[in-house]
Amino acid sequence: MVGDKKSRIITLTTDFGSRDAFVGVVKGVILNINPNATIVDITHGIPQGDLDAASFALDQTVPFFPAETIHVVVVDPGVGTARRIILAHAGDNFFLAPDNSVLKYVFDKSPNLAVVSATNTDYFLPHSSQTFHGRDIFAPVAAHLSLGVPIEAFGSRITDYLKGDIALPNKSDKKISGEIVYIDHFGNCISNISKKDFDPALLSEINIKHFQFEKLSQSYAEHQVAEPLAIISSHDHLEIAVRDGNAAKFLNIKKGEAIEVVLKESF
Amino acid sequence: MVGDKKSRIITLTTDFGSRDAFVGVVKGVILNINPNATIVDITHGIPQGDLDAASFALDQTVPFFPAETIHVVVVDPGVGTARRIILAHAGDNFFLAPDNSVLKYVFDKSPNLAVVSATNTDYFLPHSSQTFHGRDIFAPVAAHLSLGVPIEAFGSRITDYLKGDIALPNKSDKKISGEIVYIDHFGNCISNISKKDFDPALLSEINIKHFQFEKLSQSYAEHQVAEPLAIISSHDHLEIAVRDGNAAKFLNIKKGEAIEVVLKESF
Amino acid sequence: MVGDKKSRIITLTTDFGSRDAFVGVVKGVILNINPNATIVDITHGIPQGDLDAASFALDQTVPFFPAETIHVVVVDPGVGTARRIILAHAGDNFFLAPDNSVLKYVFDKSPNLAVVSATNTDYFLPHSSQTFHGRDIFAPVAAHLSLGVPIEAFGSRITDYLKGDIALPNKSDKKISGEIVYIDHFGNCISNISKKDFDPALLSEINIKHFQFEKLSQSYAEHQVAEPLAIISSHDHLEIAVRDGNAAKFLNIKKGEAIEVVLKESF
Repeated sequence: MVGDKKSRIITLTTDFGSRDAFVGVVKGVILNINPNATIVDITHGIPQGDLDAASFALDQTVPFFPAETIHVVVVDPGVGTARRIILAHAGDNFFLAPDNSVLKYVFDKSPNLAVVSATNTDYFLPHSSQTFHGRDIFAPVAAHLSLGVPIEAFGSRITDYLKGDIALPNKSDKKISGEIVYIDHFGNCISNISKKDFDPALLSEINIKHFQFEKLSQSYAEHQVAEPLAIISSHDHLEIAVRDGNAAKFLNIKKGEAIEVVLKESF
Repeated sequence: MVGDKKSRIITLTTDFGSRDAFVGVVKGVILNINPNATIVDITHGIPQGDLDAASFALDQTVPFFPAETIHVVVVDPGVGTARRIILAHAGDNFFLAPDNSVLKYVFDKSPNLAVVSATNTDYFLPHSSQTFHGRDIFAPVAAHLSLGVPIEAFGSRITDYLKGDIALPNKSDKKISGEIVYIDHFGNCISNISKKDFDPALLSEINIKHFQFEKLSQSYAEHQVAEPLAIISSHDHLEIAVRDGNAAKFLNIKKGEAIEVVLKESF
Repeated sequence: MVGDKKSRIITLTTDFGSRDAFVGVVKGVILNINPNATIVDITHGIPQGDLDAASFALDQTVPFFPAETIHVVVVDPGVGTARRIILAHAGDNFFLAPDNSVLKYVFDKSPNLAVVSATNTDYFLPHSSQTFHGRDIFAPVAAHLSLGVPIEAFGSRITDYLKGDIALPNKSDKKISGEIVYIDHFGNCISNISKKDFDPALLSEINIKHFQFEKLSQSYAEHQVAEPLAIISSHDHLEIAVRDGNAAKFLNIKKGEAIEVVLKESF
């Protein structure tokens, strides 16, 4: 059943940072409505308005949470405009986010998906501000959802939400051309090339900028300190790293940097 | 009843930062005394010793938490001196803070207020350090309070606590002169001029530095990227922002910067 | 009994930072296995791979948590190599960490210690990555432990774990020579000289770089702003600080800096 007692975990992914009271206030609103909610911070360190980073963080998170978790994403440059706020039931989980394509991986991976436009002000705080819908709309909607209110109560079903574009690598018989889509705290550079995209036994070389790797490493520590390497990330994507160092900084790699996997002939 | 079972949320607002074990240790002390406490971080990113920033963060927070919440503020440059630690019952809530005026907005907004000086060492950790009263005094006092101990048990009532000064704008018929009192993570510059201080229909211009705004915006996104704007903040104060940018940095605005609202004649 | 219902607090000390989803994902894995776990962040701001900082943070934390707490440390430069993961029952608590000496203070302070090498993959996530054992091994092992699984179930007892070296000061009748072992968020410089190492009544001088202190201060605030001072830290170690300032920066003190306590003749 949707929204039964198991729906009590609410996760938060925002660009609110850690300096102000924003995150604390959102939690106050939730706990005021559902004192038994378990609130889990995914991250509040998404760069301001960076939808790609938020999408990616969420995509890494969802598979590891219990079913019926409510994932709330507030990265919302359009706050206060007519952009919609959407509530999705996808797979076993719930998602609440602005209608700005930040849920693009969720949409891509959950073909059976119900999306509503959250418009029912009965579930908002009484006086909504123009600049802090995280507090005034997202928090109370998530809290009511966690109490078992069905998603249909929050608004009408829509199908014209923004699906977003997922940058997929170009694949030919002997070459896969991708790009760096995320750089993490350690400076590890994660590409959009998945380990499913190629057979490691056929790997000839990996090229990024003027660096070339002829094999996939099995661990960071099999290398010398400060040595660059290619590895399969914890998310099963091709990753460029530097042992005990920051690959993005040391190799001057930025988001969007081209990366190429060249394959041998398969006999 | 004061301190019944509902008193189980304890919020923390500190300048402890996120690098050390300080915050974790405080939570350990609380959970050791009350394993059922719900501890909510407001922020640990208050700049070192910045009482104004802490006051402001707390003021934004309090209205959104359930009644009987215990708000703990540890921004305490005087730790280890004879400065007192005060425990206030104000409105429906509890506050625990150094006697250094960091609760100034609480005092201002809660005329019926009971304040005690928390001196009863029965509720402190056995061996108090000179430098970490957050762990040794604030945490155990908050935890015992959350278990239902009445505030009178912690010490004697006092009335000579430091009330603090709240910078109010100067108002005349045609002009309101205020200042920037807080700059948030996004660089939004929030003034001490409240939306209650003027009628937007009579707005002629808003001046800050050499920038002039002739209207209040309804959202950030109605502007072009990097364009400055004036808007009513989520806290109902006049705010200067930059679309998808950092107003403090782009416009070189610092805390204390003068801001002025000029009104039209009302006919 | 080991692992009964009281074992429900799990603390996390990592170098994961706050920008990515790493910490959130670890919590998802734990809550998926034990929805009733109380998870407490000690810090995720340990500098990348800094075992000393992690050891120190943990050492400050342990005494203040309830018995039966499970302390998880994921500072793990050797992730993906043959380095072991160890689970220790020490004193009244549990510890889960890489076998890289990050538990050195625990080993030092808990002579009666049971350590197992956590190898039983029944308690790991099904498909372990090469780079994120925090998610794939540490989180599920901690969660199962919190449900009461005895430590013997996770693997075999070992005694050849890495004990690590604790830098102790050199002591003679009239001089104690130590070093700065930790610098906190405020820039306070904490040495390895404990207050048990000398009698303050016999203090003649404290020397660090070209600075000299002839007494131990009782508080930061008894000094003028920006004045350097020596004080006993909240952890009972000799600390160099600057009132309302950053001692590490102002005095240019780095980790490893020599510090000396000179004593008077005791008559």
